[in-house]
Amino acid sequence: MGWMQGFPPPPDRLITQPDAVYFSFPRLRWSVCHLRQFLPTVQLGRGLGAPVPLDTLPPVAFAEMRAAIDALTFRPIGAEEDMTWAASLDANYTDGIAILHRGRVVYERYSGCLAEDGQHAAMSMTKSVTGLLAEILVVEGALDDTALVVDIIPEIAGSAFADATVRQVMDMTTGVAFSEDYADPDADIWRYSAAASPFPKPEGHTGPDGYWEYLMQVRPEGAHGEAFHYRTINSDMLGWIIARTAQRSVADLASERLWRRMGAEQDAYMAVDGRGVPFAGGGLSLGLRDLARLGLVMLDGGEIAGTRLFPAEVVARIRAGGDPARFSGYPTLPNGSYTSQWWVFHNDHGAFAARGVHGQTIYVDPTAEMVVVRFASFPQAQNALIDPTSLPAFQAVAEFLMAQD
Amino acid sequence: MGWMQGFPPPPDRLITQPDAVYFSFPRLRWSVCHLRQFLPTVQLGRGLGAPVPLDTLPPVAFAEMRAAIDALTFRPIGAEEDMTWAASLDANYTDGIAILHRGRVVYERYSGCLAEDGQHAAMSMTKSVTGLLAEILVVEGALDDTALVVDIIPEIAGSAFADATVRQVMDMTTGVAFSEDYADPDADIWRYSAAASPFPKPEGHTGPDGYWEYLMQVRPEGAHGEAFHYRTINSDMLGWIIARTAQRSVADLASERLWRRMGAEQDAYMAVDGRGVPFAGGGLSLGLRDLARLGLVMLDGGEIAGTRLFPAEVVARIRAGGDPARFSGYPTLPNGSYTSQWWVFHNDHGAFAARGVHGQTIYVDPTAEMVVVRFASFPQAQNALIDPTSLPAFQAVAEFLMAQD
Repeated sequence: MGWMQGFPPPPDRLITQPDAVYFSFPRLRWSVCHLRQFLPTVQLGRGLGAPVPLDTLPPVAFAEMRAAIDALTFRPIGAEEDMTWAASLDANYTDGIAILHRGRVVYERYSGCLAEDGQHAAMSMTKSVTGLLAEILVVEGALDDTALVVDIIPEIAGSAFADATVRQVMDMTTGVAFSEDYADPDADIWRYSAAASPFPKPEGHTGPDGYWEYLMQVRPEGAHGEAFHYRTINSDMLGWIIARTAQRSVADLASERLWRRMGAEQDAYMAVDGRGVPFAGGGLSLGLRDLARLGLVMLDGGEIAGTRLFPAEVVARIRAGGDPARFSGYPTLPNGSYTSQWWVFHNDHGAFAARGVHGQTIYVDPTAEMVVVRFASFPQAQNALIDPTSLPAFQAVAEFLMAQD
Repeated sequence: MGWMQGFPPPPDRLITQPDAVYFSFPRLRWSVCHLRQFLPTVQLGRGLGAPVPLDTLPPVAFAEMRAAIDALTFRPIGAEEDMTWAASLDANYTDGIAILHRGRVVYERYSGCLAEDGQHAAMSMTKSVTGLLAEILVVEGALDDTALVVDIIPEIAGSAFADATVRQVMDMTTGVAFSEDYADPDADIWRYSAAASPFPKPEGHTGPDGYWEYLMQVRPEGAHGEAFHYRTINSDMLGWIIARTAQRSVADLASERLWRRMGAEQDAYMAVDGRGVPFAGGGLSLGLRDLARLGLVMLDGGEIAGTRLFPAEVVARIRAGGDPARFSGYPTLPNGSYTSQWWVFHNDHGAFAARGVHGQTIYVDPTAEMVVVRFASFPQAQNALIDPTSLPAFQAVAEFLMAQD
């Protein structure tokens, strides 16, 4: 692609601030691997020990398996012709993808801006890490998911979040306003962006400063508990609940409970606001194989390489899903639900997923004992546009792997 | 200290933008360990393998040695009474310090904001990493240090750097203007800061954008080659020369030539300007034991743990020093010189050092086969204020270690 190549790069290949520049397609194809270069961040540390290598098929078997999977065909949703797995990688603007079967890497590819020692934006998969941490605290008894938010964070009293339960925040069934009318300069999205910016506030800034001040002034919209509404501010609210409960930032808790115990091979990082609060709704960047480790932990009920990270009950609760009756508006997830910031398919394989815009996913298929992890830089944000060439492909690989036995 | 403790921290313990806030004492005592939280950065990667642990005295011997060193006394420069080594740590606002003798860690302490898995600002020790990379390229024949800068970087033609030699840039004997009159809004330091800022440029910004555009408009002051003038812009110029020559950024080249080959246990990082150019004059943050690894590489002529990183000639050239006749103005370095961005003491032990404001140092004593590495957050920037309780202390430890044989 040539972005940012050269010392200096030619002007038409240079990527700079602000986010409207660096995070617009096609430049985002490079930026998704380099967000720390544009944003202040905190480390999500793996510790100092040796990484625990992921079990991988031996080279010859790996090459054979990769060729076999590349040649697999599937019918994209709404399409009239089949597509090969290999063709789907380009169609999905895949930057990195790995498939694990029964704990072993059976497929792994890097392209675009990503290399095996690079980090890629997780986008809203960050929410699933946040939700996992919350579920751990709930199962371990440190956090009561029936409590009202205001009982944990008294400062939130004046906000619509005050009388929501922790569970409603975790499942995004709160009734909170968040207008995204980009044409309206008073829309919530602009106040939120201005609050979240880690850069020195412009002169005359009068709105909230940081994620948490933003959350303190959220207005109600509808009743809590009625329906699933995908609003990132729930994840930020959950991040604050976690930090207050655990007395650790989401980044530090993720380091302590996940990264330092799963044999991670890279530190990860999270973008922060101007007060050092990690962006619990979307700020994480990490390596592909560490994403795979997270997937294995979720597949195997909280264990990896013989180490238990948290009680199996945590994953069992997430796999059980939320209430599909409260869920609608996602044509590619017709039976879906959302719980603890994870997407649950309620399909034959019991699949569930972390998902982020532009194609990020951890796809866990317990029946096939398969995990697919993918980083991508699809031109459009909505996964509804990427699912047609993704979900049936994952299903085809699952069936192929099950047929290997 | 309580900085940034709490979710959120109390207002008087909160540290925020801009740098005039976060990088002023006493807040800098916390910020020196968390610069990435305020600034965009690039990774200086160690790779994915297992770290090579530093050889360390066994626990009992280590404890005995630590007690013995803590009890050592020395006479601070200009003082009328002796001070113990242990007392010097507090006097110097030490955040982390390690002593290595014959390749082994014999002393190691962390305090203030630093832990063994944390990173600390290297400040101007960054220059010494930049200078080391340049010297490697020179010795390997990739870079001609007698060449004029303009012959390597034609875009610099209109700048005072154009007709300086690479060696003059490496040794900071260029005749370039850099006014630091903070009261003058047109002083170079302000144009430089505005150019270097990685944040979106304010409306109406008309000056240079980024380190390299700044360098293109530097005016002359005096003649090249006449005297040593400590000006950070030389290091930025050298960074550009390195990047153009190696076709890699300083961060990537440091990763490839140093971090990936010295058994580093942590990734390091560098702050960048708004175009992604690493701050070659001061942007590095790294772990204490990785700083120690760099020190060992310098002590042992380019080798560590049986791996040769670069030809021994590289260190020999640096140890030889620059021309003391061109060096003046540093009362605590009466016989000193500066070459390839390293400080050379020209003392009985042949000591040389990387040094950064607020007390950062790699102090290499070849005669005692000793390396001292220190991170600190001394209230004042100037090392002249920290040297009195540091340099004689290092000498006392060197003599103690030599007497152990």
